Amino acid sequence: MKKQSENSLDARPVALSRNDLSAGLWSGKITFRHGQCDPAGIVYTPEFFNVFNQVIEDWFCSRLGINYYEVIGPRRTGIGYVNAAATFFAPCKMGDEVEIFVMVDKIGNKSYQLVLHAMLGDNEALRGYFTTVATSLDTHRPIPIPKDIREAMLEYSAEP
Amino acid sequence: MKKQSENSLDARPVALSRNDLSAGLWSGKITFRHGQCDPAGIVYTPEFFNVFNQVIEDWFCSRLGINYYEVIGPRRTGIGYVNAAATFFAPCKMGDEVEIFVMVDKIGNKSYQLVLHAMLGDNEALRGYFTTVATSLDTHRPIPIPKDIREAMLEYSAEP
Amino acid sequence: MKKQSENSLDARPVALSRNDLSAGLWSGKITFRHGQCDPAGIVYTPEFFNVFNQVIEDWFCSRLGINYYEVIGPRRTGIGYVNAAATFFAPCKMGDEVEIFVMVDKIGNKSYQLVLHAMLGDNEALRGYFTTVATSLDTHRPIPIPKDIREAMLEYSAEP
Amino acid sequence: MKKQSENSLDARPVALSRNDLSAGLWSGKITFRHGQCDPAGIVYTPEFFNVFNQVIEDWFCSRLGINYYEVIGPRRTGIGYVNAAATFFAPCKMGDEVEIFVMVDKIGNKSYQLVLHAMLGDNEALRGYFTTVATSLDTHRPIPIPKDIREAMLEYSAEP
Repeated sequence: MKKQSENSLDARPVALSRNDLSAGLWSGKITFRHGQCDPAGIVYTPEFFNVFNQVIEDWFCSRLGINYYEVIGPRRTGIGYVNAAATFFAPCKMGDEVEIFVMVDKIGNKSYQLVLHAMLGDNEALRGYFTTVATSLDTHRPIPIPKDIREAMLEYSAEP
Repeated sequence: MKKQSENSLDARPVALSRNDLSAGLWSGKITFRHGQCDPAGIVYTPEFFNVFNQVIEDWFCSRLGINYYEVIGPRRTGIGYVNAAATFFAPCKMGDEVEIFVMVDKIGNKSYQLVLHAMLGDNEALRGYFTTVATSLDTHRPIPIPKDIREAMLEYSAEP
Repeated sequence: MKKQSENSLDARPVALSRNDLSAGLWSGKITFRHGQCDPAGIVYTPEFFNVFNQVIEDWFCSRLGINYYEVIGPRRTGIGYVNAAATFFAPCKMGDEVEIFVMVDKIGNKSYQLVLHAMLGDNEALRGYFTTVATSLDTHRPIPIPKDIREAMLEYSAEP
Repeated sequence: MKKQSENSLDARPVALSRNDLSAGLWSGKITFRHGQCDPAGIVYTPEFFNVFNQVIEDWFCSRLGINYYEVIGPRRTGIGYVNAAATFFAPCKMGDEVEIFVMVDKIGNKSYQLVLHAMLGDNEALRGYFTTVATSLDTHRPIPIPKDIREAMLEYSAEP
């Protein structure tokens, strides 16, 4: 058994409270439904990744002004993940509503990183990390982030 | 925008080949079906987490000899995640079959870490990382890993 | 091969237009996301049943004033289905928004039937049929529909 | 409230036992996993439609000798549903394994109907009904069932 220090429990991030979030972050609200919860009565882990993706789609369409579905459809541009991760602070139960805030953590030439803070009331219940490398959906090879997406993300990040 | 070096693209792990895997690792096979794939024709990210969880369940039942469903059912013991992550090396398409190998990376008193290597042919298509903290499903507080689970994992890890 | 006349294509229902719907019906809106769509670019059939269930949950909570999650949680009352069906008139694509109208079709002593009309623009894209038998979640045996649910559905159905 | 006699509880089909099934039917086995079950501990209804679809895919590939993924992929032929329905006889719980038998109920020129019997032990737990109209995925218009699919289904149905 190897050591894997980057995932060590000692180094876990600390849950934020609502006051810790930057004022300009866009958010989407999600109510966890019956079918997203498991026999323990709490949300099934993969559903959180589903919900994070739904919020990212909505953020593209509603806040960035970029039609996510045209990007991966007619524009044949992949914005899938090379890395996806989540840290869980508190369980979410059936019927709970979370408000998920989207932060652009890093923008490179061909990749960007998003951090999503899911707040249950005033406290962070979980946090998602998504690293995207833009690709051609024809070749599945990396390409520069399309200019409109890049500019919209930079403008979003520049908000106070 | 903060730096988040641990998720940096520079530091990405390298895909393994089948020869790199330890001989004693248990594996399960999964064929990616129609409904797990997206309009780009490749597997939708959250479905990988679903499939990893299914493989962990099967590993408990088939290899460790622990009934996963009794653990989270009548035994009221949570073995959910405080951290779940995946790194993607190559896309998986509809109809592809992967063989997923389960490795116990670390066992503590109340937590354990699993690494899952999903091989598409001879090459690793993606890798999952799951950190579990055992909990009481009544209090949602951490508890020591149940003795039978702990011993089965230690025995599994001791295989050559 | 037996004949199965009740599912015959000859007897298919006809898609409604928005004007055909009763004025008093409650509706919920759903945008079909990336992960609900398949490699053909259209919504994966089981996702429609998921979405219908989500709308029924929302209708209970938002319109009937009955907390769906308390019913199947602390109240230990099953409101699952003995029959679930859908008829498809037109495909829904990624990014499409449907408005789903809920109609109570029949209320018996222990069972009720809902019909859900999913409108894409002015035309019905699909229709769902759900027959519920109320059950005890302890015995899984039928029980009379709880009084508050029954009365709320009757009042809803009496709207002009 | 209109009457909808075809869904009436009076007219419900009766659960079969294993002996009632024709000898020549192909079957696939499915274990219901953690993430397919709901807070009541039983399988979430839409998951049954997902599982039925997975079994149909496997039946195409393993028994009919038709690559399902080529049909809806490179061959651009839709074999989605104009009608999908399920009748539930007994609840399925987390960890339960069902064996699902596929029967071709009807083959027309452009459409076919499948009935799937999901057996839990010796008794039918639920039954699925799926009516497919073959379509062009370019025009979404009906087309004749491709000859290889039609012949494979007729040959399958002719088994004793």
